[in-house]
Amino acid sequence: MEIKVVRQILEWNEDCHKELQQLFNEKKILVLNVMGSPGGGKTTFITRVIEALRSDYNIGVIEADIAGQIDAEKMQEMGIPVVQLNTDGACHTEAMSIKNMLPYFDLDKLDLLIIENIGNLVCPAEFDIGEDLKISLLSVPEGDDKVEKYPLMFTRSNALIISKYDMKEYFNFDENRVIENAKKLNDSINIFKVNSAKGQGLDGVIDYIKAYIKK
Amino acid sequence: MEIKVVRQILEWNEDCHKELQQLFNEKKILVLNVMGSPGGGKTTFITRVIEALRSDYNIGVIEADIAGQIDAEKMQEMGIPVVQLNTDGACHTEAMSIKNMLPYFDLDKLDLLIIENIGNLVCPAEFDIGEDLKISLLSVPEGDDKVEKYPLMFTRSNALIISKYDMKEYFNFDENRVIENAKKLNDSINIFKVNSAKGQGLDGVIDYIKAYIKK
Repeated sequence: MEIKVVRQILEWNEDCHKELQQLFNEKKILVLNVMGSPGGGKTTFITRVIEALRSDYNIGVIEADIAGQIDAEKMQEMGIPVVQLNTDGACHTEAMSIKNMLPYFDLDKLDLLIIENIGNLVCPAEFDIGEDLKISLLSVPEGDDKVEKYPLMFTRSNALIISKYDMKEYFNFDENRVIENAKKLNDSINIFKVNSAKGQGLDGVIDYIKAYIKK
Repeated sequence: MEIKVVRQILEWNEDCHKELQQLFNEKKILVLNVMGSPGGGKTTFITRVIEALRSDYNIGVIEADIAGQIDAEKMQEMGIPVVQLNTDGACHTEAMSIKNMLPYFDLDKLDLLIIENIGNLVCPAEFDIGEDLKISLLSVPEGDDKVEKYPLMFTRSNALIISKYDMKEYFNFDENRVIENAKKLNDSINIFKVNSAKGQGLDGVIDYIKAYIKK
């Protein structure tokens, strides 16, 4: 990749990111950028957040996927406004793509917009997309060495969710290794341990998100 | 990303890929490009392949990682010639990077070169790197919808390894969904189910790899 071109893309993206942040602040919408590996538990985590907050807040979801609309259908079943963003092969979401999705939402009503990024521990970490918080998931079956191997994601995240935490007994997973390495990269990172499938351990992260709601 | 630039990079890569393939054919080296999500089980699978084949063949490994050398150290402990390729943030491996690693190996002696790609279900699928076989791993904890969501990887792979197969009882994983969708994208794909950690189910894929050895 020619460095010059990549840098230009990142600069354009950063301009659009700032424009979106201003808009979301005016409209008092909290925006979460949820990232992690394929199958790291992003969708199930998001459905738990929706369940916990939907009676008090208006929530919208943008589902970014390379192809298909499997996750968007899950949100639709919950009766939540959802837009499917297909990146058509691209490995991350950019601010401009998020901007293009906004006409599908009633921004005056929305309190919380959750963006489920492409399943990828690498590229999405580079692109800000108008979010207030970057929340990255690392699931126990992925292994305890992932923070060291994919440092940018954890350096840039506000919160790290260790997901599928109930699977710890079946995998050789040293959570202290994960926590120590994440804190070394980013000493202000907030770390939570959840089992979204069974709805366990979610109170802490729900309170954390609620504290950022703008309305 | 400007389409023109990306296309040019893919064309350059393809030229280098063909040059590498020719070299590996002359030297009679079978080259495997092992891909999959972060924590999908690539490294453990590779160690099992090495254990099964090292008494009959000379094996070398290239470990591609964004940062660090955790996996390369595991290979070194096995006494296998290994080179660590750090992509310094890049999300995939390119043919030129592989070419640059070759002076570290004795190509006249090598029978099998295993390249462990960056943990990523998206970008590595686009770049040929001189390989004879693309082998992609999908682990049970990642979920049974990944073939639909990341179609290029499975369209372009010669073999799909369903890994961490012993975890099936703990996850809601419909293997028929995976197999049917993979066959729909690529009807010549070879599918194997393995549990590398416990060394189970590996005979089929070891025989499959052996059948391609060139010497």
